Amino acid sequence: MSPVDQLRKDIVSASRILAHLRLVEGFGHVSARIPDSDRFLITPRISLAMVHDEQLLTVNLKGEVVDGNHPVPFEAWLHTAIMKTHPRVNAITRIHARVANIFSVTDRRLEPVHNHGSFFAGGVPVYTRPDLISTEQLGTEVGEALGDRPAVLLRGNGQVTVGRTIPEAVMMAIYLEEAAEVLYGALQIGKPIPLTIDESKQRQLEALPPVDLERAWNFFKNRIAREDS
Amino acid sequence: MSPVDQLRKDIVSASRILAHLRLVEGFGHVSARIPDSDRFLITPRISLAMVHDEQLLTVNLKGEVVDGNHPVPFEAWLHTAIMKTHPRVNAITRIHARVANIFSVTDRRLEPVHNHGSFFAGGVPVYTRPDLISTEQLGTEVGEALGDRPAVLLRGNGQVTVGRTIPEAVMMAIYLEEAAEVLYGALQIGKPIPLTIDESKQRQLEALPPVDLERAWNFFKNRIAREDS
Amino acid sequence: MSPVDQLRKDIVSASRILAHLRLVEGFGHVSARIPDSDRFLITPRISLAMVHDEQLLTVNLKGEVVDGNHPVPFEAWLHTAIMKTHPRVNAITRIHARVANIFSVTDRRLEPVHNHGSFFAGGVPVYTRPDLISTEQLGTEVGEALGDRPAVLLRGNGQVTVGRTIPEAVMMAIYLEEAAEVLYGALQIGKPIPLTIDESKQRQLEALPPVDLERAWNFFKNRIAREDS
Amino acid sequence: MSPVDQLRKDIVSASRILAHLRLVEGFGHVSARIPDSDRFLITPRISLAMVHDEQLLTVNLKGEVVDGNHPVPFEAWLHTAIMKTHPRVNAITRIHARVANIFSVTDRRLEPVHNHGSFFAGGVPVYTRPDLISTEQLGTEVGEALGDRPAVLLRGNGQVTVGRTIPEAVMMAIYLEEAAEVLYGALQIGKPIPLTIDESKQRQLEALPPVDLERAWNFFKNRIAREDS
Repeated sequence: MSPVDQLRKDIVSASRILAHLRLVEGFGHVSARIPDSDRFLITPRISLAMVHDEQLLTVNLKGEVVDGNHPVPFEAWLHTAIMKTHPRVNAITRIHARVANIFSVTDRRLEPVHNHGSFFAGGVPVYTRPDLISTEQLGTEVGEALGDRPAVLLRGNGQVTVGRTIPEAVMMAIYLEEAAEVLYGALQIGKPIPLTIDESKQRQLEALPPVDLERAWNFFKNRIAREDS
Repeated sequence: MSPVDQLRKDIVSASRILAHLRLVEGFGHVSARIPDSDRFLITPRISLAMVHDEQLLTVNLKGEVVDGNHPVPFEAWLHTAIMKTHPRVNAITRIHARVANIFSVTDRRLEPVHNHGSFFAGGVPVYTRPDLISTEQLGTEVGEALGDRPAVLLRGNGQVTVGRTIPEAVMMAIYLEEAAEVLYGALQIGKPIPLTIDESKQRQLEALPPVDLERAWNFFKNRIAREDS
Repeated sequence: MSPVDQLRKDIVSASRILAHLRLVEGFGHVSARIPDSDRFLITPRISLAMVHDEQLLTVNLKGEVVDGNHPVPFEAWLHTAIMKTHPRVNAITRIHARVANIFSVTDRRLEPVHNHGSFFAGGVPVYTRPDLISTEQLGTEVGEALGDRPAVLLRGNGQVTVGRTIPEAVMMAIYLEEAAEVLYGALQIGKPIPLTIDESKQRQLEALPPVDLERAWNFFKNRIAREDS
Repeated sequence: MSPVDQLRKDIVSASRILAHLRLVEGFGHVSARIPDSDRFLITPRISLAMVHDEQLLTVNLKGEVVDGNHPVPFEAWLHTAIMKTHPRVNAITRIHARVANIFSVTDRRLEPVHNHGSFFAGGVPVYTRPDLISTEQLGTEVGEALGDRPAVLLRGNGQVTVGRTIPEAVMMAIYLEEAAEVLYGALQIGKPIPLTIDESKQRQLEALPPVDLERAWNFFKNRIAREDS
């Protein structure tokens, strides 16, 4: 399979996993950079539970659709702007995780208290404009809010996670919601004990190695495969 | 397909979607005005998960069943009175959403904090009599409580949502529960940051266009189709 | 079908419904009085999700198994003592509803705030001994705590609901958990507004008629039938 | 079936049950001592939802894999150290239960308030280092934190439960999460009423007998069997 075909397959797997976990419902998209190019693949204006391989669009860093017939997402500029301004990012998920969303509409910062939360050491930034990210200007602002982190909350409007690979961006989406769930729960029963920066660093070393990430990715791919059969 | 046949089909889809999302359990109904007439279609006294096309009743604005053999819902007057007094309304859902219901039995107002909540800017009214809406008088009172809004809470007894079309009334039901869930969660972890009226207006412009509404509607129709197969 | 065969069939339906709704997990039982006799039918020491018609036991009011080969539940005396001391009761569920259980281990009384909660006007009593109800003495005490109400909480140990019929006892189980869920939620967001005694009485008149109860019962029977097919 | 073959079968059943109940997601393992030996069986670095009989590893108390080809879990030392230092323990689950996890990241102790919680009388200890348990030293420390109890929380990183048999270790995992859920809920609505030590002892006598434990184990085995078919 060619690298681009593999990317297409992984984008569809990512879409199914995010839909299966209800990290997206009717909306949301996934994108991935085509290596050594100014282009990336992105899901069209079709629900992630339903999207297919041949429906993916190819978009360049000027925001032009260079391949594909389906309508482009209203928020394509969110992906384009981040791909353009963040060379480290090769994959993006645009999701609507329910518990993480709650943290975006209060004065409470989402900070890690458990192992998989360690990727979010220092807290997850919030982009406070509640608008649809439909222009390059807004997309660039979201990218600035993201900075060098793996995730950013859009106030009352879901989240963006990024990674060096599609599995990494997807696992960041899963871990972000998990981190939100654990902190949410902790706040209900007592005083949360945050991970220190040092503890977080140590945990990231242990949790991010490809072997673990791949195990988790394969677990979720297997689960959706069993659902589809 | 004739417009009325399409309405019948959409009422059954709406019923299945609401049942699938557990926005109704054993009870609840859906109605839709027959264009350019003094009549509307309504589901009979059958659970929405089980209702079929040919079981729908036709009722006129005097509350008379003019077509159909199945028993009429105890709350048919709720639909009749709103259809009669609110010409803008072409479709109604009568649901029992769980989190929205919680807001109807406390002193806490349901106000929007997230994007899909923007339709409920200014707060969702509560009709405070806990009775079954079984007379024209009660139905008219509920209609007055509704006013020009998309939804009204019936104290301890579910909700009513309305729309210009069936998909709109259904999406209002879905967004109402979502708005309740987000605010409920926000109240558990900190101080909620409400959408301002201006922010809500802007979001409504972005979220209500037929194309987006239809995407969401198709997403949910697809999901129930896959469940049924 | 003979009345007793119908009872057997309804006990199995009740068991499946309670298991489906997770109102029981591995444990729990259902019993029903054989009309005009000193006997009742009861599920044996088999999970309600798995129990079959021919496995039901017949027990008399002295606590003797007069028909059936399977082991009798450890808590058979709970059923026997209530059947003996409460002639109004023809059916009993012994369940482990999760949210209602929470109210049994705190100082917070479970009182109705929503329509289906109206059956529990005045609050649900708690039997405070945490023991297994394995003797006639303990069973009689639970019956005394129940009094003329439809339900009693066993501290940290589930619940008992009763009815004139099996559908009524099952609907009381469902409504009890629903009442607990609504009050639980209300307590998280503000000050709950309880139903007054008068409001509760009015709602009971509206909600208990056989036609409504039967609709709900049929809804749940239909749902489990679709799951089994 | 030989005793070791039965153990293998039970480890796979335990893995499926824990995955079905979402007490593990992509990670987690189960181990069981081979009677009258210095060896135990353990699941490899494969998600418990997917692991098969022939993939199990045999490890000795020096931490050496003496049979099996699949990669050993990163936390094999957790199992080895407990098996070595706790002769009473014949089976171990390493899980990631969501609500119990919350108690490990706050200052709130997990103490029993309901019947199945009685096994945790006196409270569940927390091992406060958030690290992966990847060395004999760390495994031994976890064993010390466990002491003579059925469970220990690893701060922000899941739990360990143990038993004399596999069903017992699994039921401790299930009851641990249940105890956490009930206490979590109780804390939201009022003042929890803990089981006294005496009440807990009495409940343990009633709840632990093999016949009850086996009923619960069979219930869960049956449920996963129905899912797989």
